[in-house]
Amino acid sequence: MTPEACPAAGRVLAISGGIGGAKLALGLYRALAPQSLIVLANTADDFEHLGLHISPDLDTLMYTLAGINNPELGWGRDEETWTFMRALGELGGETWFRLGDGDLATSIERTRRLAGGETLSEITDDFAGRLGVRAQLWPMSDDAVRTRVETAGQELAFQHYFVRERCAPAVTGFRFEGAECARPSPRLIRALGSNGLRAVVICPSNPFISVEPILAVPGVRAALSSCAAPVIAVSPVVGGRALKGPTDKMMRELGIEIGPTAIAARYRDLIDGFVLDLEDEAARQRCGVPSLCARIVMRTLADRERLAREVLRFADSLDSRTVG
Amino acid sequence: MTPEACPAAGRVLAISGGIGGAKLALGLYRALAPQSLIVLANTADDFEHLGLHISPDLDTLMYTLAGINNPELGWGRDEETWTFMRALGELGGETWFRLGDGDLATSIERTRRLAGGETLSEITDDFAGRLGVRAQLWPMSDDAVRTRVETAGQELAFQHYFVRERCAPAVTGFRFEGAECARPSPRLIRALGSNGLRAVVICPSNPFISVEPILAVPGVRAALSSCAAPVIAVSPVVGGRALKGPTDKMMRELGIEIGPTAIAARYRDLIDGFVLDLEDEAARQRCGVPSLCARIVMRTLADRERLAREVLRFADSLDSRTVG
Repeated sequence: MTPEACPAAGRVLAISGGIGGAKLALGLYRALAPQSLIVLANTADDFEHLGLHISPDLDTLMYTLAGINNPELGWGRDEETWTFMRALGELGGETWFRLGDGDLATSIERTRRLAGGETLSEITDDFAGRLGVRAQLWPMSDDAVRTRVETAGQELAFQHYFVRERCAPAVTGFRFEGAECARPSPRLIRALGSNGLRAVVICPSNPFISVEPILAVPGVRAALSSCAAPVIAVSPVVGGRALKGPTDKMMRELGIEIGPTAIAARYRDLIDGFVLDLEDEAARQRCGVPSLCARIVMRTLADRERLAREVLRFADSLDSRTVG
Repeated sequence: MTPEACPAAGRVLAISGGIGGAKLALGLYRALAPQSLIVLANTADDFEHLGLHISPDLDTLMYTLAGINNPELGWGRDEETWTFMRALGELGGETWFRLGDGDLATSIERTRRLAGGETLSEITDDFAGRLGVRAQLWPMSDDAVRTRVETAGQELAFQHYFVRERCAPAVTGFRFEGAECARPSPRLIRALGSNGLRAVVICPSNPFISVEPILAVPGVRAALSSCAAPVIAVSPVVGGRALKGPTDKMMRELGIEIGPTAIAARYRDLIDGFVLDLEDEAARQRCGVPSLCARIVMRTLADRERLAREVLRFADSLDSRTVG
């Protein structure tokens, strides 16, 4: 039985930030008929740097789905060279944000096409198609939303906080500049309203800087709430530590208990189910929604695909259209 | 006796396009105290490509003087990689103009700084200094002048003609767009008016597309004509062939006899002396100005330096301030 023909046919929408979320997005890509997967990417960590429009999460997802991601770094392209950065340094340019020579082509060509009037969605469709990605990869919006990190001392542009300052400053909050005027991807709103959606999966991404910027785009939260398909979130923290990145550090600094319960609480009005790690089984009763305990640390490709299948099965079990 | 202390002390201004002219510019750099050389670069082959400001002649001169030019290609940087071009091609970008990964840093950082309000001269000073160039390298103007190549069929932007079409279309003329409004480098006008100039050397560059765009900038021709120092041109054609590039092809298409006489004629109202190859000695009497026969084909570094010394000696011999 092909995936398309199985009873739970339909499209799956994965909501993701960069590296951490991309692991499960790749698992879903492999577990599903590829064209039935939509990956919705956070673009609030996009920024203008060296005169280029850089979309870190979008590119991490694109390279990962295309199978050309850099396995050592987690971000960027494989078979990469670094001649540009070296030469830029010799000329006194800013080198704190590392861009590989191949990765640079994505940013340069995107910037050129944006300046020519194409939308980020159009350009991403074309790039992803050329790189052989058969899933849909959608930016959350074609309008600029920029995460600003509020710290005790000052408000920082996201990449300045994340890369230049290496997440060192203690955060006090986040602001998604431009979100109030941003229009969500029209395809996203259509997909969430359609009957052809099998499930929405909020990948194990950082809630503060990867998922909540997406939810801050007007219309997205409402469309997710009213979506007929089950919405499942996968915890980005396991045993009190983030799967990837500064999620745990941020939770500590914001005075939030580090664990799946607090994550589930942040999504409570949106989700129909929550997936937490076996290690956190004790927290299961406090999630407030139906939950699944699974092994959510994904080290291997097989881990990614296995978790994807478990999440899909869990979503199907919660589908009010087929269950009960 | 150091070069500065010799009787013919003073600064030397070399006027140059790219590869061909850069050979003699390098010879002069090695023959002179480096800080006494000024190289004035053609910027009419600059263009906007991939959203970047690219200055081919300026960069060829900068890399050559810095000793980091690519000896195989003639243009670009040594120890270069080409990952960007390969990735750009995969994304469907325009790959007809080759930009190495290291070379790209120059264009990206220049574009960023131009957008920030710095002038091409300021940026070039800084880049050249950082790369260890001790000569002065000056763009002819900080304003945009763009060579347009008139052909039987259509008018082409210079790089489209030169690189994309590989100089195939027959030329009928040239137009230097923007020249009428361009302001010459103020340093250039000052240098040409100063008494500290030992000589002006028009390098063996293509007259049509490398030297004449410089002369088309208002004020340059007059400043050269009234300059107290001897102005010497070195022929870019030897034995009926161009030293480099399409000079001979262009002369043929324009109905100009291919040889040093026609070159000297184009510069006649500006120059005090002309240097032609030993092979063209028969043409010497028709140059219309004092001439020097020398070996102007420069294959080795020693050739470059030897010709530079011969040209300087010739210039000194013509200096009305010291001779006769």
